[in-house]
Amino acid sequence: MWEQTEMDLVESEVVVVGGGYAGLAAALRLHDAGVDFTLVEAADRVGGRVLTEIRADGVTLDHGGQWVGPTQTHLLALADRFGCATFPTWETGKHVEVWHDGGTVPYLGAAPADGPGIAEYTRVSEVLDELARTVDTQQPWRTTRFAEWDAQTAESFFRAQTDDPDARRRLALAVQGLWCAEPYEISLFHVLFYIAAAGGYEQLMETRDCAQDSRFVTGAAGPARAVAGLLGGGVRLGEQAQSIEYDEGGVRVRTASTVFEARRAIVALPPQAVRTIRFTPGLPVSRDGWLSHSPMGRVAKVHAVYDAPFWRAAGLSGVATLYDDGPVGVVFDNSPDDASRGVLVGFVYGDRVTDWSDLDDARRRAAVLESFTTVVGQRAARPLDYTEKIWSRDTFARGGYEAYVTPGGWTGYGRRGWREPTGTVHWAGTETASVWNGYIDGAISSGLRAADEVVSTLSSHAEG
Amino acid sequence: MWEQTEMDLVESEVVVVGGGYAGLAAALRLHDAGVDFTLVEAADRVGGRVLTEIRADGVTLDHGGQWVGPTQTHLLALADRFGCATFPTWETGKHVEVWHDGGTVPYLGAAPADGPGIAEYTRVSEVLDELARTVDTQQPWRTTRFAEWDAQTAESFFRAQTDDPDARRRLALAVQGLWCAEPYEISLFHVLFYIAAAGGYEQLMETRDCAQDSRFVTGAAGPARAVAGLLGGGVRLGEQAQSIEYDEGGVRVRTASTVFEARRAIVALPPQAVRTIRFTPGLPVSRDGWLSHSPMGRVAKVHAVYDAPFWRAAGLSGVATLYDDGPVGVVFDNSPDDASRGVLVGFVYGDRVTDWSDLDDARRRAAVLESFTTVVGQRAARPLDYTEKIWSRDTFARGGYEAYVTPGGWTGYGRRGWREPTGTVHWAGTETASVWNGYIDGAISSGLRAADEVVSTLSSHAEG
Repeated sequence: MWEQTEMDLVESEVVVVGGGYAGLAAALRLHDAGVDFTLVEAADRVGGRVLTEIRADGVTLDHGGQWVGPTQTHLLALADRFGCATFPTWETGKHVEVWHDGGTVPYLGAAPADGPGIAEYTRVSEVLDELARTVDTQQPWRTTRFAEWDAQTAESFFRAQTDDPDARRRLALAVQGLWCAEPYEISLFHVLFYIAAAGGYEQLMETRDCAQDSRFVTGAAGPARAVAGLLGGGVRLGEQAQSIEYDEGGVRVRTASTVFEARRAIVALPPQAVRTIRFTPGLPVSRDGWLSHSPMGRVAKVHAVYDAPFWRAAGLSGVATLYDDGPVGVVFDNSPDDASRGVLVGFVYGDRVTDWSDLDDARRRAAVLESFTTVVGQRAARPLDYTEKIWSRDTFARGGYEAYVTPGGWTGYGRRGWREPTGTVHWAGTETASVWNGYIDGAISSGLRAADEVVSTLSSHAEG
Repeated sequence: MWEQTEMDLVESEVVVVGGGYAGLAAALRLHDAGVDFTLVEAADRVGGRVLTEIRADGVTLDHGGQWVGPTQTHLLALADRFGCATFPTWETGKHVEVWHDGGTVPYLGAAPADGPGIAEYTRVSEVLDELARTVDTQQPWRTTRFAEWDAQTAESFFRAQTDDPDARRRLALAVQGLWCAEPYEISLFHVLFYIAAAGGYEQLMETRDCAQDSRFVTGAAGPARAVAGLLGGGVRLGEQAQSIEYDEGGVRVRTASTVFEARRAIVALPPQAVRTIRFTPGLPVSRDGWLSHSPMGRVAKVHAVYDAPFWRAAGLSGVATLYDDGPVGVVFDNSPDDASRGVLVGFVYGDRVTDWSDLDDARRRAAVLESFTTVVGQRAARPLDYTEKIWSRDTFARGGYEAYVTPGGWTGYGRRGWREPTGTVHWAGTETASVWNGYIDGAISSGLRAADEVVSTLSSHAEG
């Protein structure tokens, strides 16, 4: 057996590693600033953890990030530049809560007024908001009670706050929904930082005027595809960075077939993808330790397509939260704006995904459709189309939506490991954002920030 | 540029990935059972995190694991089989404690009777021992207070136990010394599990009749080299596993130049090294999540060699614990048994290693030698030889001594992700041991256990 490989050499001022929203935003800013760059992306598409698919029957599905809210100004500006329109997330009708005893509670409005544990849940979430207001999102280590909060899990905090088991179930589902993690594995400080970065707990949790406000007509990958179209040959797909050599003189990014040489690199990958690259010299202890305290959330996103959003006629919104033993934690109506089809999306996250993902195809599907029928009735059992994206098994992202930080990660490694450049290597990715960390919007601002770092370094060198 | 690679194909019944003590023990058991195997090791030597070097002047230094204690029966049996002799760790004379105010406290015996915070420290360590006695080391998730303890850090527990800052300093140094981590980042349950796996806190902390009891005349790699010598051509050095494909029919382990095919694989690597391998199909969420909640400790081991162990004449043992701002936390007399040279070894771990490891060579050395002079006097400032091993920057191990578990790691992933085989892939490594987890002894027993799993599977297939 002989394998022959021609190694190409590509030179540019800056090499951007990763073609998700962070890398694309960085490349676009370099393009706008007239800086020569090359972007390398391992997959055969751009978008990263945003993945829009048009199914055989024409329905557009977002397997990854999908929403945009009014304070997500970086994403809105990008969409506006490329003329990508949005429409409001459907939430008309009664929402449903499914409880662990099998009972269902329909309700109108943003939150049930008197569901089990709701008063205690609301009180604790207000405490979270109050503590989050003290977080310094630019220099988190300057937060007054930083070390104390980072040395405990969200679970420790919830246990200390309330004995109400239903309030604790609500808090656990919130942690699943926001970080695809369980309260027992996430740093309380990271929870507070993330709430602060979004502008408050309500911004994270609610739909109208909040993080889940609107969707893109093109799917959420529309702006990403538009950026890639504009950048043209500067974007190289199917090029997975295997190693990065860096020193004061520049960087060399090697893929299976090509060496990309540049003066600076912007690495815009999820933390666990960064760890698959061999760096020479090895990354500093602070950066490596930060990455190894940043596991990816566990999540799958599942869609079922029906001939119509039949639940609407029954007065249901299709929005549901489930506290039972099924795999799905939250359901949304993900139908197209014209309601030409009915689409339910389910989120399987945290502990829910672990055993479910090991089932065979038929059992996984049956379990999800059982969750859907609990919410909108028996018609949900026979969709026209059914599809899953198990992000925890995605070759490149290795989880989703984003990485969270385990206790002590911020304390031990944050100050120098979070996003401080490592010599000629700069770091982007939504995990490095101070505003809407974990969201598409944070990815974009992180790319712009990293590009600005590079541009200012290159121009100061040029002047010097 | 053209790169040409001839891909060799090597077939055997079992492929063992990793040539540390775990992989070597597995291969030796397969050899003894007459099972055809190949062991692939990425480095150009065996031993993994045990690394013995003979310096230019003839002094033997252990850069990695070095000690053996009387209850470490797997290591003792292996050493005995190959005639590797041991000698007692030197601890005659007064030990020294160096405090953060710069004061030094010499004392005789295993622990100072009345140092700062000693009573509170002793009380809390006894509580740890008491809780550890309830841990089920074979099926840790069956421990009564499992979820409660795993949802908190050691730091939360220490804060709840005592307000005494000096007791907390002692506890922090103990955590550094045992896990190369800080109390704020390690699961309390993991701490208790590990104490239980060693047979108690004293076994971990003390020298005579405990974990630090003796050293090997050949250095701790002596038995490893002997095993490799016996296994001969079955051990392939310089072969780094890049990908592993596995299904019911068998496994294919690919390195840069060779494909190793077998019916079963035993992967005997530290958790973060496992994560650099591409598995097809992807690892289950439970196993991947376990690995991503198992960061490596941060540690460097530094040696200074002198013409003689001059501190002994001054009545000092060379053993010290340091609570000051220097890089070194603990010092031992690591001289050869015949005292033909004087050798001090220093451990730089946890937070101490992070900034220190970013200094240039001269500053790192100066800081360490300042720690040594604080302990044994000014003569320590001018060694004949000085050498460091920064394990956190080791290409393969990526840290040391071992991986610890972050909060929630055991709860979320332990039951199925800790060491349960993944199809035809079996897991070894000291992190998978129930006895002396984290030690050479645990590595060996883990390799034997994994080999037994494989042998019993192969023979039941042969019968079937």
